[in-house]
Amino acid sequence: MSNNGDSGHAADTSRRNFLKVAGALGAGALGTQVAAMREHNAAAAAWYQEHTDHAATPTAADAVEEMDAMHEAGIARFPTETAARGNQPLEFEMDGDVKVFRLTAAVTSWEWDTDQWVDAWTYNGTVPGPVIRVTEGDKIRVIVNNELPESTAVHWHGLIIPNDQDGVPFITQPPIKPGHAYTYEFTAREGNAGSHMYHSHHNSAFQVQMGMLGAFIIEPKDPSTRPAYDVEHIMVLNEGPIAGFSINGKGFPATEPIVAKKGQKVLIRYMNEGAMIHPMHLHGMPQLVIAADGWLLPQPYLCDTINVAPGQRWDVIVDATEVGVWAFHCHILSHAESSHGMFGMVTVMIVEE
Amino acid sequence: MSNNGDSGHAADTSRRNFLKVAGALGAGALGTQVAAMREHNAAAAAWYQEHTDHAATPTAADAVEEMDAMHEAGIARFPTETAARGNQPLEFEMDGDVKVFRLTAAVTSWEWDTDQWVDAWTYNGTVPGPVIRVTEGDKIRVIVNNELPESTAVHWHGLIIPNDQDGVPFITQPPIKPGHAYTYEFTAREGNAGSHMYHSHHNSAFQVQMGMLGAFIIEPKDPSTRPAYDVEHIMVLNEGPIAGFSINGKGFPATEPIVAKKGQKVLIRYMNEGAMIHPMHLHGMPQLVIAADGWLLPQPYLCDTINVAPGQRWDVIVDATEVGVWAFHCHILSHAESSHGMFGMVTVMIVEE
Amino acid sequence: MSNNGDSGHAADTSRRNFLKVAGALGAGALGTQVAAMREHNAAAAAWYQEHTDHAATPTAADAVEEMDAMHEAGIARFPTETAARGNQPLEFEMDGDVKVFRLTAAVTSWEWDTDQWVDAWTYNGTVPGPVIRVTEGDKIRVIVNNELPESTAVHWHGLIIPNDQDGVPFITQPPIKPGHAYTYEFTAREGNAGSHMYHSHHNSAFQVQMGMLGAFIIEPKDPSTRPAYDVEHIMVLNEGPIAGFSINGKGFPATEPIVAKKGQKVLIRYMNEGAMIHPMHLHGMPQLVIAADGWLLPQPYLCDTINVAPGQRWDVIVDATEVGVWAFHCHILSHAESSHGMFGMVTVMIVEE
Repeated sequence: MSNNGDSGHAADTSRRNFLKVAGALGAGALGTQVAAMREHNAAAAAWYQEHTDHAATPTAADAVEEMDAMHEAGIARFPTETAARGNQPLEFEMDGDVKVFRLTAAVTSWEWDTDQWVDAWTYNGTVPGPVIRVTEGDKIRVIVNNELPESTAVHWHGLIIPNDQDGVPFITQPPIKPGHAYTYEFTAREGNAGSHMYHSHHNSAFQVQMGMLGAFIIEPKDPSTRPAYDVEHIMVLNEGPIAGFSINGKGFPATEPIVAKKGQKVLIRYMNEGAMIHPMHLHGMPQLVIAADGWLLPQPYLCDTINVAPGQRWDVIVDATEVGVWAFHCHILSHAESSHGMFGMVTVMIVEE
Repeated sequence: MSNNGDSGHAADTSRRNFLKVAGALGAGALGTQVAAMREHNAAAAAWYQEHTDHAATPTAADAVEEMDAMHEAGIARFPTETAARGNQPLEFEMDGDVKVFRLTAAVTSWEWDTDQWVDAWTYNGTVPGPVIRVTEGDKIRVIVNNELPESTAVHWHGLIIPNDQDGVPFITQPPIKPGHAYTYEFTAREGNAGSHMYHSHHNSAFQVQMGMLGAFIIEPKDPSTRPAYDVEHIMVLNEGPIAGFSINGKGFPATEPIVAKKGQKVLIRYMNEGAMIHPMHLHGMPQLVIAADGWLLPQPYLCDTINVAPGQRWDVIVDATEVGVWAFHCHILSHAESSHGMFGMVTVMIVEE
Repeated sequence: MSNNGDSGHAADTSRRNFLKVAGALGAGALGTQVAAMREHNAAAAAWYQEHTDHAATPTAADAVEEMDAMHEAGIARFPTETAARGNQPLEFEMDGDVKVFRLTAAVTSWEWDTDQWVDAWTYNGTVPGPVIRVTEGDKIRVIVNNELPESTAVHWHGLIIPNDQDGVPFITQPPIKPGHAYTYEFTAREGNAGSHMYHSHHNSAFQVQMGMLGAFIIEPKDPSTRPAYDVEHIMVLNEGPIAGFSINGKGFPATEPIVAKKGQKVLIRYMNEGAMIHPMHLHGMPQLVIAADGWLLPQPYLCDTINVAPGQRWDVIVDATEVGVWAFHCHILSHAESSHGMFGMVTVMIVEE
C-alpha cells in the first residue's frame, strides 16, 4: 500500500518493468516479450552476470542490499529465454485409421536456464517430451527409436491397454536395446479420457529423472463429458540432475508464465514425474480439483495448495477472476526460494483485464 | 488391563499423576496445572535433569530401566512451562471502519522447551505469531514493522486480495527493508472464510523456518454457513532450527494439550508451515475432515490420520465421545519419538466427563 | 508389438517363463509355482548369484547387456521363495464370549529376500505380524508376551477403545518390561469396521521400523454395509533396516503377487507403517478408493496412483477387467528400481482369463 520512503527505487522500477512484461505476455509471442523485458532489465541482468561469475564477499553493511538485489535480479530475468521448450504437440501420420507417432530417445543438450546446459535424456529432444494428444477411440501406433547408451522401454502411465503394450521389460516386453526400435500399438479406450503420461520403465529411477517423460492426453469423444475451459497448461514436476527442482524441464526464471484473460477458466494438468511430493500453491485464486489421474472426481473441491505425489496427475480449474501477476510455486519453500532469491519450482499466473 | 506384577511402580505413579494433571487441565489456568504437576513429578524431573546434563553410560543390565525412565520423565514433564505461547489473539484498533493490526518482525529469544532457548524470527515476539481473526466483509489494515537484519514481506496465504497486497517482493511490492514499515490494506472477501495463514515471502525458506508464520482466520459473516464447534485449536506444524519438529513453535513436552468435555465438538485447524508432510494421528476418535485450505468440502469424510502437506490447511472436527488422555502426534514416528522418549510433534487430547 | 530383431533372445525366454509362472500362480500353491519357475530360470539365477557375489567390472561394450541381464535376473527370480510370510490369520480361543489372541514379541531371524536374513523384531515370528480379524461387536482379549530386550506396548491404531487399553506407556499404561506379559481387553465397537493396525508404541520409531506391526481387521456385522469383493490383499508398506523398502516385510522379488480371475473384484488394504509416503501405482486398471483409515468414503473415486502416508490405511477395489501380468509398485521410482533392476516396493497383479 505504502512504503515509508527510501527502500525501493530499484524495486519499483523492477516491478513496473515486470508488469509491463506481464501485459505484453498476453498479447504476442514469447520471443517478443522476452526482448521487451531484456531491454528494460539490462541493469539487473548485468548485476546478475557479475555476481554469479565470481564469488562476492559483501561487507555486513552491504548484505541486505546484496540479498535483495539477487532476489530482484532473478525476477527481472523472468521469463528468461532458453533454447527449447517441452510439451509441444507431437505430429502424427495416418496409416489407414491408425495415428502413427514417432518418439526418438536420445541424449540431448538441454538449456534448463539461460546459458545453463546439461545432457538430458529426452524424447524428441525436449524435456518434457512432446505431448501425445489423441481422442477416445483412436487407434494409435507409437514407434520408439532408442538412440540412448542404455536399453529403455516406454510405459503409458494411466492408460488401459493390452498387457503386452504396457512397457515393462521382462514382464511385458524385452527392453529396447540401443540402436533398435520398438512399436507400440493400442487403442485409446473409451472412458479413459484425461491427463496421463508416458515415461521410461527401464532403469527408470535414473532415466525418468534425466528427462524421459511426457504428457499423454486423451481427449473425450464427447467434450461435454468433461468440464469446459479456455486455457490449458500442462505442469510436469520433476527434480534431479538435469534441472534441479523443475517445472516442465526448466527452473525459475526459465519457467513459463500462465496467461489468461479475466473471466477465463484455466485448466492445469499437474503431473509429478519426480521422487518427491510437490504441494503446488497458487496465490490469489483457489483451484477447483476436478480429476485424479484423469478420472473425474464425483465431487470437485476447492483448495489453494494441492499436494501432487509422484506418479499422480491432478486436474484443476482456476477461475481467473483476479487481475494481476500471481506467484505460483511449490510450497516446500526450499524447492522455490533460497537466500539468493526464487528458483526452481516457481512460475506465475498472469490474469489480464 | 493387568500386568503380571513387578514392572510398573514408578510407571503407575506417573500415570496417576498425569491423569490428575489431565483432570486439572480442564478446570483452571495453565500455570496452576503446571505447578501441580511439578510437585508430583519432582523425582522424574530430577532424573531428567541429571541425565541430560551429563553423558550417561548405563550398563547392559540397566539399559531397559534407563530407556523407560527417559520415556517416563519426558511425559512427566508434560505440559512443561515455557515463557510464552504463540497463537494469541492480535488486538486491533478501529480507524473509521478499518480494523488496524500491527505486526513487528524481530529476532526474539524463544523458549521452545523448558530452559531451551533459541533466537527465533518472530511476529510480535512469538512462534507462531499472533492470530489475526476477522470476519468476512471486514476492512483490514496491517502495519508491518521490520526490525529484522534482513528485508522481508508478508504473504496472506489463502486470501483473495488485490494483487498489489499479495506480499511477493519484486512481483507485487518492494521488500520491506530493515528499519522500515509497510502497510497492507484489503478486505476479507465474502466467501473466503476459513483457516488461512500469513508468513514471510522473502528469503522464505529461511524466514518461515525461523518462525515468521501465523494463523489468519476469517470467520463467516453468517456462522450457520460453517459447521458448529465448541472448542477450537490451531495446530501450526513446522520443522527447523528453532524448535525441531514442532507444534505451535514448541516441541513435546512443551506442547499444549487440547482439552474438551465429553460431548463437545473440537475444531482443529491444521496449518503446515514446514517443508515436510506431517500425517497427524489422533488416538481414540476419528477426525471428520470438513475443509481444505479454508474451503468447505462438499462431502466431509472421516479418518484418523490426516496427511498435512506444506502450505495446506485442513479443518477437522473431532466429536469428543471418548473420555481419557489420547495421544495425538505426527505418524512419521521419527518426528515424535526416539529411544529417549516422545519429543517433537506430540501432544494429547484430554476428554473429560 | 514388434522388435526389429536381435535384441531379445534371453528376454523372450524370460517373458515366456514369467507368463508360465503367472499362469501357474492362479492354480496352485506357491511352493509348486516357485519350483516351476526355478527350473526355467536356472541360468538367470546363476547369473545373479555370480554377479552379486563379487564385484563386476564390465567393459563399456558389455555394460548394456550387463544392466539388462541384472534387470532380467531380478524378474526371473520373482516370486522367489523365502522362509516365512507375514499376514497369516491369528488363531484364537474362546473364553466364554471373549476371543483370546496371543502375541509374542521377540527378535526373530527374518528372510526378507532369498538367503537375505536379518534380525527383525516381530510379533509371533513374522513381518508383518499375524492378522487379527474380528467382527463388530466381538469381545477381544490380546495377551502380549514381551521377549524383546526392550520394554514395549501395543497400540491398536484406528480402534475406538477404552483409554486405558490404548497402549501408550506412561500415558495409558506402564510399559511391558522384557520377560513380562500384558493383557489388553476391549470390544470391537460397532461402526468401527475396516482396515486398522496394531504396532508398538514404545521406542516406536525404532520398534515399528524393525517389524513390530500387523493388520487388525474389523469385519462388519452386516457385510452388506461394505462394498463386496472376491479377493483380499493386505499391503503393509515400510522402510528400514530389516527389509529396505518393503511390502509385507519383503523386498522384490520376494514380494507376493496378487492373483485374480478376470471379472473378480480385488480389495487392497494399504497400510503404511513406515516414515515416508508411498504413492502406489497399479498398471493397467484404475483403483476405486472406498475407505480412509477404515471409514467408508461418502463418495468413492478412481485413481491409478494412491498416495499412502505414514499411519494411513486406504482401501481400494480393483475391478480385474484386464488380463495379464501388471506391474504394481511405489511410484517413487527410487523405491522400486535401480540400475541393477527392480527391487523393494514392487509386486504384480496377475489377472487370468
